[in-house]
Amino acid sequence: MLIVQKYGGTSVGSIERIKAVAQRVKRAADRGDQVVVVVSAMSGDTNNLIDMALKISKTPTTREMDMLLSSGERVTCALTAIALSELGANAIALTGRQAGIVTDGVHTKARIEEVPSEPILKHLREGKIAVIAGFQGITRDGDVTTLGRGGSDLTAVAIAGAIKADLCEIYTDVDGVYTTDPRIEDKAKKLDRISYDEMLELASLGAKVLQNRSVELAKKLRVKLVTRSSFNDREGTLITSEEECMEKPIVSGVALDKNQARASLIRVEDRPGVAAEIFGALASAAINVDMIVQTIGRDGKTNLDFTIPSAELEQTKRALKDFGGALDKQEFDDQVCKVSIVGVGMKSHSGVAARLFSSLAKENINILMISTSEIKVSVVIERKYGELAVRILHAAYDLDK
Amino acid sequence: MLIVQKYGGTSVGSIERIKAVAQRVKRAADRGDQVVVVVSAMSGDTNNLIDMALKISKTPTTREMDMLLSSGERVTCALTAIALSELGANAIALTGRQAGIVTDGVHTKARIEEVPSEPILKHLREGKIAVIAGFQGITRDGDVTTLGRGGSDLTAVAIAGAIKADLCEIYTDVDGVYTTDPRIEDKAKKLDRISYDEMLELASLGAKVLQNRSVELAKKLRVKLVTRSSFNDREGTLITSEEECMEKPIVSGVALDKNQARASLIRVEDRPGVAAEIFGALASAAINVDMIVQTIGRDGKTNLDFTIPSAELEQTKRALKDFGGALDKQEFDDQVCKVSIVGVGMKSHSGVAARLFSSLAKENINILMISTSEIKVSVVIERKYGELAVRILHAAYDLDK
Repeated sequence: MLIVQKYGGTSVGSIERIKAVAQRVKRAADRGDQVVVVVSAMSGDTNNLIDMALKISKTPTTREMDMLLSSGERVTCALTAIALSELGANAIALTGRQAGIVTDGVHTKARIEEVPSEPILKHLREGKIAVIAGFQGITRDGDVTTLGRGGSDLTAVAIAGAIKADLCEIYTDVDGVYTTDPRIEDKAKKLDRISYDEMLELASLGAKVLQNRSVELAKKLRVKLVTRSSFNDREGTLITSEEECMEKPIVSGVALDKNQARASLIRVEDRPGVAAEIFGALASAAINVDMIVQTIGRDGKTNLDFTIPSAELEQTKRALKDFGGALDKQEFDDQVCKVSIVGVGMKSHSGVAARLFSSLAKENINILMISTSEIKVSVVIERKYGELAVRILHAAYDLDK
Repeated sequence: MLIVQKYGGTSVGSIERIKAVAQRVKRAADRGDQVVVVVSAMSGDTNNLIDMALKISKTPTTREMDMLLSSGERVTCALTAIALSELGANAIALTGRQAGIVTDGVHTKARIEEVPSEPILKHLREGKIAVIAGFQGITRDGDVTTLGRGGSDLTAVAIAGAIKADLCEIYTDVDGVYTTDPRIEDKAKKLDRISYDEMLELASLGAKVLQNRSVELAKKLRVKLVTRSSFNDREGTLITSEEECMEKPIVSGVALDKNQARASLIRVEDRPGVAAEIFGALASAAINVDMIVQTIGRDGKTNLDFTIPSAELEQTKRALKDFGGALDKQEFDDQVCKVSIVGVGMKSHSGVAARLFSSLAKENINILMISTSEIKVSVVIERKYGELAVRILHAAYDLDK
């Protein structure tokens, strides 16, 4: 097998952890696998570098930030290769540049443009383990770039796609993807498999295992992802195409996002362009609007409800101040949360949403907003009922079985 | 003026120090100078990286060590450029690769092979201050290399030579080159000028301001060096060609090296090839023999005296064990030191060495060995008289005037 293994910041967070990573990589190589390793910076290192820069300038130049931040992964990359050599393995450390990763020039959040397979395959053919500094690349002009949050995952997925790896393993400090947050529902179960689309919904709903950019890229490049822990030997969760998820459960997981606030614009003037004006103003203020619900107008008036991150509530109020004349009332509620169920099986099953509504109704939990997609149902409810709702739905869809 | 300024590890040892460096660079730019800045890693950082590697492997692969160690200069390079931008200057950070520095492939002690001027001049023409990560380069194959001890000085000198800079300023935590160590003789005076050759002698005799490799390269490329402190605004010491040192003092400095031991091989068989055998054996054992004195033979026997670093005394004894049959006696003395006077004026003055001998004799200091070069006289004496001898000679050659 040709495997890409990516180790995150906590997995390489100390000399001892780096040695443990090397042993895990060596085991895979000893099994006969060809292995490419992608590493993040030691946990905390990147934040320390950012702190130093911010002590010098509140707006450090992004080109220089990239040179600064890319140094952390070079350290772990070199140390991991040294640890592998110490175990008798034949390892070579490669920077993003040496691995051939070319990006655009948008510093601190560059997009990968090209990953040629040859710079890495060359070393694999020579029987070497290639250890690659994640999170970084260079532009066609030779400037150093970084890929932003979750950048090392992106590096791993892009490389796995380029060299047509059989598997891309993402090692973190959690065992995989769970049916829901085990801290809320101790009956939560680790999923063996989940489809790209379900993972995308769960990630955007607050599951922190993988970032959307990496899952999207994996889906596009048809890279089989496995997320698992570097702290034990348990099997993780395979994230793959829907066709390879044989069971297609109706609901794969329940997610809770407590950082939500709700805004209601009551009796807004119901004419074309009003919504564009409102959400245009919010977009200009860089506010991330999540759910939007518009109820049917009456008397030339309509109600507009939407949710935003709690942290952006004050900004939202400021951005909407000018719309005071065009509506009757603005109401804001920062004591709400969003509960969602996700599952590819929904597409072919009816009554999924109905079961959600009735389950919550049975416990007298009032639903404030509803939003659905092909494989997801989200509801906004009072925040104090968030955990309870998760447990109710986890049981209602037999996720603990 | 076109100036290269190099700042060592203590000069960029903290965020506050980096800000101070940026201010000094900005002042030069504001005066109208074109400035290239070369920075070392923050003091301690390189050693920390080495420690981490040694915790993983006693013999880390040198290629990976270079990737590891080169990260320290990238950090200070980026931070210095950020600090300059914060002051309103137009600065760009360049890695060794981006500055075009090409080396051979001898990892951890690579030699610079090529420094094209264009990658740096391009930015200067655009009115930018180029901030360059010292100590590093890449091979023609794209591997990262480092230049070994004093590598950032080498980077600065090589760049100054390539772009034909008017001056290469080496900033450290000392004010310049002194007539002798001020901790031994408080009347020691900072020299305004000194020739390359004198500096080379002083450096090899233990003065720690500059390393020989950098001075040699400066001499070869005809780069005017200034060594000065980044902690104050005092003028430093200009190191330049002998022709530019108008005064040509008979003696410029007095140096003391206390880490010396003496070996005496008494009544060695006096036949061709004996010395080659003895010093060949020492060379094979990687022992650095310094002074060698052979006294004229008698009865087919001769005496050989030489000095070695104290730390290599035991090794020397082991290496010479097999010569026991070919000589009467071996004697070792690890309680000696070497005192030297250096000055280009010696070439044209007689009686310089005689004054040294008589000055020491007046104080009853016995001379054990003598070695001279065109611009240097060294004597080996008992270690306990080292500091006294320095003060006597400092006065004897009027260095306190």
